[in-house]
Amino acid sequence: MKKFLDDADTFLEQSLRGFALAHADLVQLHLNPTFVSRRALKPAGRVAVISGGGSGHEPLHIGYVGPGMLDAACPGQVFTSPTPDQMLAAAQAVDAGSGVLFIVKNYSGDTMNFQMASDMLSIEHLTVLVDDDVAVENSTHTSGRRGVAGTVVVEKIVGAAAEAGADLADCKRLGDRANARTASMGVAFSSCTVPAAGVPTFEIGAGEIEMGVGIHGEPGRRRELIKPASAIVDELLDAVLSDLRPAPGQPLLMLVNGLGGTPLMELYLLQQLAARRLERHGLRMARTRVGNLTTSLEMAGASLTLTMLDEELCSLWDAPARTAAFSA
Amino acid sequence: MKKFLDDADTFLEQSLRGFALAHADLVQLHLNPTFVSRRALKPAGRVAVISGGGSGHEPLHIGYVGPGMLDAACPGQVFTSPTPDQMLAAAQAVDAGSGVLFIVKNYSGDTMNFQMASDMLSIEHLTVLVDDDVAVENSTHTSGRRGVAGTVVVEKIVGAAAEAGADLADCKRLGDRANARTASMGVAFSSCTVPAAGVPTFEIGAGEIEMGVGIHGEPGRRRELIKPASAIVDELLDAVLSDLRPAPGQPLLMLVNGLGGTPLMELYLLQQLAARRLERHGLRMARTRVGNLTTSLEMAGASLTLTMLDEELCSLWDAPARTAAFSA
Repeated sequence: MKKFLDDADTFLEQSLRGFALAHADLVQLHLNPTFVSRRALKPAGRVAVISGGGSGHEPLHIGYVGPGMLDAACPGQVFTSPTPDQMLAAAQAVDAGSGVLFIVKNYSGDTMNFQMASDMLSIEHLTVLVDDDVAVENSTHTSGRRGVAGTVVVEKIVGAAAEAGADLADCKRLGDRANARTASMGVAFSSCTVPAAGVPTFEIGAGEIEMGVGIHGEPGRRRELIKPASAIVDELLDAVLSDLRPAPGQPLLMLVNGLGGTPLMELYLLQQLAARRLERHGLRMARTRVGNLTTSLEMAGASLTLTMLDEELCSLWDAPARTAAFSA
Repeated sequence: MKKFLDDADTFLEQSLRGFALAHADLVQLHLNPTFVSRRALKPAGRVAVISGGGSGHEPLHIGYVGPGMLDAACPGQVFTSPTPDQMLAAAQAVDAGSGVLFIVKNYSGDTMNFQMASDMLSIEHLTVLVDDDVAVENSTHTSGRRGVAGTVVVEKIVGAAAEAGADLADCKRLGDRANARTASMGVAFSSCTVPAAGVPTFEIGAGEIEMGVGIHGEPGRRRELIKPASAIVDELLDAVLSDLRPAPGQPLLMLVNGLGGTPLMELYLLQQLAARRLERHGLRMARTRVGNLTTSLEMAGASLTLTMLDEELCSLWDAPARTAAFSA
């Protein structure tokens, strides 16, 4: 294992300290229990939006804490769910009197722990479950579909609504709608290595790719030989489109997401290929973001996400945001 | 070679098309000759700032085109200098009547081609050469020190000055000063693969690191066994500090730069370790940026850059900028 690492046991805390130092104008780090909150809390009367999950997917979620997106994020150990005490402490810290919306990726550990927090929390709250990955039903750590890069879309849209004064029920409705209109699929060229494990999560041959991979290296649809980028893009997009079934002319938001180890040049190549493919389907890429938005440590690979925008979702996507990893 | 790639011959153009599509609000792509310019040109009477170099270091330079930073960038093929016709066309396109400042990283191909463009260009112009890499004197493609991530600092500072109306001589003076007060050193854990070559640029053992690596995989100071992150940080920082020799209390800008294949969690760990090390030296990290700022395709590794700020440089660093990869 080649990593910048002193000690796997202190890795997360040291990394979070560095994050908080680098973005001291935006965020505040709390330890025992661990969460990251906005430095400037929301005015009273606004819904607080909280997410969380295993670390190793940065900038998700800590990089999306700030005005226009999340109020707090609860990072677990690498690829491990945060614990209910983190979510409770975060909720108590950022609640502005109008309730808390939890955004949870659909993994068994996350849903269980957020449910436990939910059961103990006296503040009014609701949960949006994100399950945008169309690759497989059920998986190593999931019943039902997995939550992947579409989480960024949900966090942006709900965050913007909460900032604008939407009430808790409305934030929940918008989050559910954004999730229902969002689908993703990814592909891996390499595995990643969890520091505490010290060995790659899975083995993959020199010429092989994992089509439909999960963001922890969970198996996808199949292992196959590498093929041209345009063939990969066609397969990913067609899987996403056959799930969403957008009408011709439907304005789409597209995320071209790097899983961590893929150069920006290749992500922009995917952007170009995917945009052309959408055009050939008579569809319109109305908005787009390219970059490492939801990663799997140093995994080489990428995912494509589409969201079927409508006027409301689009204006929430466009609303101002200022976080470590997302400016609008 | 596992890359998102259809054809190495069209890779750069397709990638640039994707970049231009993703950032259509900010930039415009020109082909034959190839350069990227701001969508909204500067008002007349301002100096135009142009950079360029081999591709594969994204977001450098195209990601820094926009208000507050560059007016245009000239991307060469991967790790290959752009040609003089690109620089000439870019200069003619973005000149706003007050001359052009070229920012050039110190590599033989780049300096030669920018010099040729300079000889042919009738518009008033000056050049700032960036050579911030303290690892080695002279190298595979360089006489003197190499230009690496410190280029981002020079582009930001000169870009801000030009935006604010500084004249050509003043832009040159500030660029030279920023460069003289900036030093960097990097370390690689893995090689990278140039698409047209198809094989890794260099071989490196499972437990080895290249201390002082160049951004094209040029040899550094030595090959050694991997060591704890804090020992790596100490060595990188001490090399940089012994070059700059800042006085106690000197405010510093620090870049923690990922070379492409290193996860954000590790970069934030480096940030924390480096900030602590500076403190122990009685130095102050006044500003910082963490992320993939100047990359070497998918190389795993990182570099540290320090700039000795003064009031003028600090206010130019803080000035507003809006580009694909840098917001302030």
